[in-house]
Amino acid sequence: MASSTLSLLPSTSSSTFHHHFILKFRHYHSYRKNFFIPIKSLSSQTPTPTTPLSQDQLKKVAADKAVDAVKSGMVLGLGTGSTAAFAVARIGELYSSGQLTNIVGIPTSKRTQEQAASLGIPLSVLDDHPRIDLAIDGADEVDPQLNLVKGRGGALLREKMVEAASDKFIVVVDDTKLVDGLGGSRLAMPVEVVQFCWKYNLNRLQEIFKELGCEAKLRMEGDSKPYITDNSNYIVDLYFPTSIIKDAEAAGREISALEGVVEHGLFLDMATEVIIAGKTGVSVKTK
Amino acid sequence: MASSTLSLLPSTSSSTFHHHFILKFRHYHSYRKNFFIPIKSLSSQTPTPTTPLSQDQLKKVAADKAVDAVKSGMVLGLGTGSTAAFAVARIGELYSSGQLTNIVGIPTSKRTQEQAASLGIPLSVLDDHPRIDLAIDGADEVDPQLNLVKGRGGALLREKMVEAASDKFIVVVDDTKLVDGLGGSRLAMPVEVVQFCWKYNLNRLQEIFKELGCEAKLRMEGDSKPYITDNSNYIVDLYFPTSIIKDAEAAGREISALEGVVEHGLFLDMATEVIIAGKTGVSVKTK
Repeated sequence: MASSTLSLLPSTSSSTFHHHFILKFRHYHSYRKNFFIPIKSLSSQTPTPTTPLSQDQLKKVAADKAVDAVKSGMVLGLGTGSTAAFAVARIGELYSSGQLTNIVGIPTSKRTQEQAASLGIPLSVLDDHPRIDLAIDGADEVDPQLNLVKGRGGALLREKMVEAASDKFIVVVDDTKLVDGLGGSRLAMPVEVVQFCWKYNLNRLQEIFKELGCEAKLRMEGDSKPYITDNSNYIVDLYFPTSIIKDAEAAGREISALEGVVEHGLFLDMATEVIIAGKTGVSVKTK
Repeated sequence: MASSTLSLLPSTSSSTFHHHFILKFRHYHSYRKNFFIPIKSLSSQTPTPTTPLSQDQLKKVAADKAVDAVKSGMVLGLGTGSTAAFAVARIGELYSSGQLTNIVGIPTSKRTQEQAASLGIPLSVLDDHPRIDLAIDGADEVDPQLNLVKGRGGALLREKMVEAASDKFIVVVDDTKLVDGLGGSRLAMPVEVVQFCWKYNLNRLQEIFKELGCEAKLRMEGDSKPYITDNSNYIVDLYFPTSIIKDAEAAGREISALEGVVEHGLFLDMATEVIIAGKTGVSVKTK
């Protein structure tokens, strides 16, 4: 596994950076309403190494770095989530300016499809483009072997289908997503299950990881109704409050063996490169 | 594996047999409209070894034999399809007559749920009864190791969930379902897939079994629209016109590994007993 660190701020023209960032933020803002950045204060500041970038600024810098790998003529897997949205926005910008031509995007969710369509990116589906050159997406956790937890955004199945079909899969994260072992963030590891007898499967999932103190919860939309995926399924979120998953391959096999489990959020041996934005720069890890 | 054959007709009182059969047929008839038996000719005939029973009569005899294993107090998995419907009807009869008490049925489909409810059988779900004492269901194919193909009726996922949770799983078939190897009937081996990019998965499924000359087809409802399962998914039917599946375990693993595959119709190492109705009697195979 190779690792390199690029110095972030000294080589960036701050005025250009801000100009681009604000332009793109406007696009992004119209696509997701809960997004918040204090534009006024941002545009009047000059970022220096002593002015830490916000998490969203870090995500954007890393996403732009990932998009450097996009070439004209490529079939592209377009991820889902706040980091992936920065990458999609950047691809849209390069396409509309003519710097990228003849690309086709395969979105991993209805949300991403809407965003990419609004940017004018030509879109297709796996049915018509079963081989993808490059996918770019965020992740919820990245372990030292570049194994991932994904799916907190709810699009795990489509993401896994698209990213498993990709020759190259670049993951973009900020450094808060790095863990020693999967489950280590203490946040949700999602499992998509059919609605039929979801409670039975929730109990079985919790039972698999009983010795890790796993807590399984049905994902809710608001207070009263279950969250429903793009595929009309439910999500059971697994939490590991005190442990990590030591053998992720074995865990994935055990989860998949349960009838009624549609997909799980362990993305194992799939990422070919991880771009990590930290406070002091962007680092790249490859397998 | 043990095997025994029971002589069918000589020990059966033909008048009782026909009386019961017609009673139950009426029930069944109201539940499934395309079902056809020439009642008039049946009731005017006396079956003898020289008057072969119809396929449906054979199914009924075998289903009744399976229901002999049902005891009061049991939690029962109730299968789906024409043979299972005979078993459900028989259980309903024994329950309403008081010969079976304190049973709970876990139906494997909406159709079976409706039939069992109409017969007054107390019903529950895996969520509340995660362990089942005995499941009874039909099958589309049975190989010499008692591995099965199931799901032509479209209920493969729920059937597999319920039957995998059962201590004992009795399969009831007529002898036309016996094959040397799975796929050998030349009829459909179903795979339930999410609707998203079904064509991509259809192509991948066909590719897995390319060397067996497999043909994959989306199951249709009528001429124009895809069949949709109880779980809002599609079914891809695999046909093996010239070969059988030699390593069913490996085939099952390969199918399950495809993202977007929800379940497949290979029921491996699940049946504990198979009751087979042939022209000359009922035979029982156990593992």
